[in-house]
Amino acid sequence: MIVRKLTESTWQEVRAAGARGIALLPIGSQEQHAAHLPMGTDTLLAEAVVDRAEALLAREGGAPELVRLPALPFGHSPHHLFAAAVSLGASTLGAVLDDVLDSLAASGYHRVLVVNGHGGNDEIMRLAVKRFALRAEVTAAACSYWTVTAGEDDGGRPEVTPGHAGWFETSLMLAAHPHLVRTPVPARAPVEPPPLFDHPPHPGLTVERHGEWARVGGSTDDASSADAAHGRRLLEARAAGLARAIRAFDEATR
Amino acid sequence: MIVRKLTESTWQEVRAAGARGIALLPIGSQEQHAAHLPMGTDTLLAEAVVDRAEALLAREGGAPELVRLPALPFGHSPHHLFAAAVSLGASTLGAVLDDVLDSLAASGYHRVLVVNGHGGNDEIMRLAVKRFALRAEVTAAACSYWTVTAGEDDGGRPEVTPGHAGWFETSLMLAAHPHLVRTPVPARAPVEPPPLFDHPPHPGLTVERHGEWARVGGSTDDASSADAAHGRRLLEARAAGLARAIRAFDEATR
Amino acid sequence: MIVRKLTESTWQEVRAAGARGIALLPIGSQEQHAAHLPMGTDTLLAEAVVDRAEALLAREGGAPELVRLPALPFGHSPHHLFAAAVSLGASTLGAVLDDVLDSLAASGYHRVLVVNGHGGNDEIMRLAVKRFALRAEVTAAACSYWTVTAGEDDGGRPEVTPGHAGWFETSLMLAAHPHLVRTPVPARAPVEPPPLFDHPPHPGLTVERHGEWARVGGSTDDASSADAAHGRRLLEARAAGLARAIRAFDEATR
Amino acid sequence: MIVRKLTESTWQEVRAAGARGIALLPIGSQEQHAAHLPMGTDTLLAEAVVDRAEALLAREGGAPELVRLPALPFGHSPHHLFAAAVSLGASTLGAVLDDVLDSLAASGYHRVLVVNGHGGNDEIMRLAVKRFALRAEVTAAACSYWTVTAGEDDGGRPEVTPGHAGWFETSLMLAAHPHLVRTPVPARAPVEPPPLFDHPPHPGLTVERHGEWARVGGSTDDASSADAAHGRRLLEARAAGLARAIRAFDEATR
Amino acid sequence: MIVRKLTESTWQEVRAAGARGIALLPIGSQEQHAAHLPMGTDTLLAEAVVDRAEALLAREGGAPELVRLPALPFGHSPHHLFAAAVSLGASTLGAVLDDVLDSLAASGYHRVLVVNGHGGNDEIMRLAVKRFALRAEVTAAACSYWTVTAGEDDGGRPEVTPGHAGWFETSLMLAAHPHLVRTPVPARAPVEPPPLFDHPPHPGLTVERHGEWARVGGSTDDASSADAAHGRRLLEARAAGLARAIRAFDEATR
Amino acid sequence: MIVRKLTESTWQEVRAAGARGIALLPIGSQEQHAAHLPMGTDTLLAEAVVDRAEALLAREGGAPELVRLPALPFGHSPHHLFAAAVSLGASTLGAVLDDVLDSLAASGYHRVLVVNGHGGNDEIMRLAVKRFALRAEVTAAACSYWTVTAGEDDGGRPEVTPGHAGWFETSLMLAAHPHLVRTPVPARAPVEPPPLFDHPPHPGLTVERHGEWARVGGSTDDASSADAAHGRRLLEARAAGLARAIRAFDEATR
Repeated sequence: MIVRKLTESTWQEVRAAGARGIALLPIGSQEQHAAHLPMGTDTLLAEAVVDRAEALLAREGGAPELVRLPALPFGHSPHHLFAAAVSLGASTLGAVLDDVLDSLAASGYHRVLVVNGHGGNDEIMRLAVKRFALRAEVTAAACSYWTVTAGEDDGGRPEVTPGHAGWFETSLMLAAHPHLVRTPVPARAPVEPPPLFDHPPHPGLTVERHGEWARVGGSTDDASSADAAHGRRLLEARAAGLARAIRAFDEATR
Repeated sequence: MIVRKLTESTWQEVRAAGARGIALLPIGSQEQHAAHLPMGTDTLLAEAVVDRAEALLAREGGAPELVRLPALPFGHSPHHLFAAAVSLGASTLGAVLDDVLDSLAASGYHRVLVVNGHGGNDEIMRLAVKRFALRAEVTAAACSYWTVTAGEDDGGRPEVTPGHAGWFETSLMLAAHPHLVRTPVPARAPVEPPPLFDHPPHPGLTVERHGEWARVGGSTDDASSADAAHGRRLLEARAAGLARAIRAFDEATR
Repeated sequence: MIVRKLTESTWQEVRAAGARGIALLPIGSQEQHAAHLPMGTDTLLAEAVVDRAEALLAREGGAPELVRLPALPFGHSPHHLFAAAVSLGASTLGAVLDDVLDSLAASGYHRVLVVNGHGGNDEIMRLAVKRFALRAEVTAAACSYWTVTAGEDDGGRPEVTPGHAGWFETSLMLAAHPHLVRTPVPARAPVEPPPLFDHPPHPGLTVERHGEWARVGGSTDDASSADAAHGRRLLEARAAGLARAIRAFDEATR
Repeated sequence: MIVRKLTESTWQEVRAAGARGIALLPIGSQEQHAAHLPMGTDTLLAEAVVDRAEALLAREGGAPELVRLPALPFGHSPHHLFAAAVSLGASTLGAVLDDVLDSLAASGYHRVLVVNGHGGNDEIMRLAVKRFALRAEVTAAACSYWTVTAGEDDGGRPEVTPGHAGWFETSLMLAAHPHLVRTPVPARAPVEPPPLFDHPPHPGLTVERHGEWARVGGSTDDASSADAAHGRRLLEARAAGLARAIRAFDEATR
Repeated sequence: MIVRKLTESTWQEVRAAGARGIALLPIGSQEQHAAHLPMGTDTLLAEAVVDRAEALLAREGGAPELVRLPALPFGHSPHHLFAAAVSLGASTLGAVLDDVLDSLAASGYHRVLVVNGHGGNDEIMRLAVKRFALRAEVTAAACSYWTVTAGEDDGGRPEVTPGHAGWFETSLMLAAHPHLVRTPVPARAPVEPPPLFDHPPHPGLTVERHGEWARVGGSTDDASSADAAHGRRLLEARAAGLARAIRAFDEATR
Repeated sequence: MIVRKLTESTWQEVRAAGARGIALLPIGSQEQHAAHLPMGTDTLLAEAVVDRAEALLAREGGAPELVRLPALPFGHSPHHLFAAAVSLGASTLGAVLDDVLDSLAASGYHRVLVVNGHGGNDEIMRLAVKRFALRAEVTAAACSYWTVTAGEDDGGRPEVTPGHAGWFETSLMLAAHPHLVRTPVPARAPVEPPPLFDHPPHPGLTVERHGEWARVGGSTDDASSADAAHGRRLLEARAAGLARAIRAFDEATR
């Protein structure tokens, strides 16, 4: 398998890879992650999972050629603007994805995968790949890195996965970028009632309340028990899931 | 509980209900549902579930005042334009929802619920309620009628629920609108490979392939074994789920 | 003549009718109609006129195949947002019409007719059919139901026709949906000066004053003398006009 | 009465006139007017009517202060793009009007009048003044110059008024700008059937057929009998109508 | 050389000139120019330069056919809305340019030149010609009238050229439209610090400070020493530069 | 001086720096740079200049706090879509800049600087900072890295500075990222006539010809004589210019 960074490739290399390769676009965000994690957490984690998935595929061999685009460092975070987020509007993010995807189609790509690190991007990304596949003769895929791990390790704590700035993300950051985590991570008591966006009153119901993120202090759960060892296991599990998803996507669309 | 139809109410009645009531907006689609179901299936089923949920709430008592808007009969169905759909673009549907929700906020509503009958509307609806709750002091909720039935009867066939124009929807229509189902429903062999949008090659991965709906003939599974008895059970289960979701939403947001 | 409801038809039936049929789209509004008429008055009256026109055409025979779309229940009512309207912005309504009309063209329709029940939609609808006929090889028509009755009965009161929530609309509603009219309809004194939008200071001049609808209390004239008998005559006259217009449109565009 | 040209005034003069004056914006088009009239006919005629109305008001005295903006020389003429029109899209023209009107409100104007010379601008202009009066505390008016002449001279030929590049406009141009009319104006036989946009098959029905303007050769009626004497009478009648409309608008909105 | 005014030409003349001619569009603004210059200064000066350039080309002979469009009298002046500007938004102006340019391409023009008189239009105009040349098979050019005078006379005062409502523009207006200049032009002391937009703290840096135009009183430099003699020289130099630019554009794109 | 990377900072740190700090946003592109330079050249060089400018400021001391955002790796490159660019549309890039800048204002920033590495972004960036300073109480600055070096070393070759994928950029890349330059850089003969966008036929005239980038092979000048020693000098000169510009911006806006 070849992993090619688009930003470091010449245009002929990028063009040549289009016929059979898969273009991979990581997207993230710049938004508050409580007092102990950095603004770029979602971008950093999406990149960390992609890095490790690529390494796995390279080790195993036989994988498709991947052309990796530079990560989009900004995402849709209007709910975090109360706390210094740098956010793209939903239509702006959708337009960025449309333009990037159209560019890839114009370069001859037939297979594209978007890998997301931020919950707020999720619907926008899925809509973007849907409309891309309608207007271009492509197969387009999308996932958030925490959704491709069925059957993988969840560290025994599914109730806080993925959450926001809590046990899950903090553990991952302790594994991937320990120097960027402010430690010791302070404990926090559960918020009562818990945030409606994270604990809807009925399964299957999306509920959004004005001011809810500010009310609950910006995170979903206590991160003080996060640890690097769990983080490594969780990170490898996501990477393994993404690697398998890439291979399956390749096989289904060759 | 009072259920008030907005279209039949005077403006003073609509205004008066805003302070404590919940505005409920059904949305559907007009799109191909194979040779045996009508174009309006998704709208009709969303309305059927809402009708029955309202009846349940009325029987049980103690529920909040509901102000029911007329259903939006058109949805986002670009993937069915190959087969006579009447489709709104994603930005158009988003604008319709924004405008309707803003109107409700201007009328004093603090609680709104969108009930959807068409998979293609799902992300657009969820994005709309998210941005609504950011710009207005409201709590906004959304569901697709088949997502609020956790713990309810699935007729033993989760693999074809909800699907499109298959066993599930056909059974529901045989229960709700039997005269609109063209019978006998012809059998169809499974499509190989099954549609990528319905059977992604890896869990958690959204995959969209150009022309996939036309390739698989417009439905996800064989509907010939659908029957009204199952349909009635499935329909009541969804209605019960929606009634419980409405009650839970009311309690969480009073 | 066949009148086919799109929402109840299969896609093959909808498609098959495209070559020679006329697609008919009713559009209305949800807006204040004083204290005695319901929010959906405009939608209900547009549908009532279309119902009766279809019945007339069916009785007379020889008319073209009509494929009737579900009514768009929401219209452009920003001037009624002060009183609980549910309003689409002008660009939103234009986009809905564009998308619906484009869908019909994609399904093979060459002839489309929009029938409107709300004054505020009028220019938007006419612009929409104009641009539709520019971009697609179609003939598109539009009318508001009260504009196709030249030579028909006006009940002797042209000065209050159509007005808003006044004698004309109240009479029609007493004929079409008597149970939705709150009676007795209270009398109201004329507003002085009368609303500029209804009584421009010079013929041919459109004049819009900020806050004018609120100033005049939301209606154009006293509705207390409305009666069902006049309403029936007025309704039949509009239905007869629309039936003739449909037939003339068919003959001119075969 | 003072008539002030905005383009020749200092900003302090423009600002000072805002409190009590009426801002007047002529709009026109650049589009084909058959082989004998120039592209700018609609703009030139709108300006000619405004010029003469201003002169009348000045002669009569007692009229409001008018601040006349430079005419917008381009209009919405997509139906004439087959023949060298320079056309603004409907949304572009709407945006131009919005921006100009908002600027005037920001400068303190409470009364604005748009005077139009081109049929294709009509709905867009009326929508623009409606939404302007909703968002700003103003009274906004609009007319096309041929609509403010009720009771005035129509030269005995209402069936060709205003038409396009026919007897009416050619007569006006022979009066206002004789050197721009290519004479002798060639006769043309009636087109059969006449254009649907000009002769709808039923009164009150707007009908637009793809390609209709090209089919009928770009004009509505034979212009060869146009003459300057009629043109002068018609022009004066429109100017008198506009002058009366301005005075009536002033009185109704002081 | 023929200079043809589009507004006075028939459509056949406009169409015929498209194959080899150059379409020329002047654009300006309506905005404050201190207490002594009129709102339309930028439009008037762009037109004055074009008039004189055309006269030069006509005298010299051998130049291409020019089809001159009516000037767009409104520009992008949001920074002058504090002082009675009539301003188009950036997207509105961009849309106007797109629509006008597309119309010209549809009429068969392959060469278009935009001549601008207002600094605030500059980037928008350049972006417009760039995207025009991408979507149409044309060569499009643009300049602001003060940028095409390299090697020409600058009156020895480059530090105030072009400025805004200062020595340069006032001199030009004294030459081109003396009756529109309010004299004597009052002296004004230099503003300290000078406006950041005109005197960035480092060369090559664009700096925009909120409220800066109001702070500096709406002009960049003292205009009291402006005189008509300098103005004539400056005006002729710009006209000569534009004439040479037109000829060079013609030769490079024949 | 503190240079803080926003992506590695907590939200409290980002928020705290807003009152007095300067937010710095690098923007670049992904586009063809001939056969010897990578797609990301413009992004890499903007970042290289910013890196070195920050180092200079840190060495010299006394500079303002800088909060550096992650570079936007994509730019507006429609003219390179013929050769595998990944391009944002002009409106998309404008929206990204608007959203990022608005986010910074919402976080309390009053001073923002955009540093650009790609010519195609230039006008869009300048428009974005202009409109930002109109709607927010901020001072916003922008430069392309090659425009802030007045008085600095140009290597004696101003005629090829900055160009595209030629001597200048190749020298810089040989200094900043030598391993990403494919060597030996092949020589190329001058293109005749040279590209109109780079050599307009008259100074001050922007000329854009359809297909020009493809005609000239994607670069402006021969890069084969580029060398790392010149590159280092050029790079340091740009960094010194940017450092001085930042300091001057700080002093002018404290």
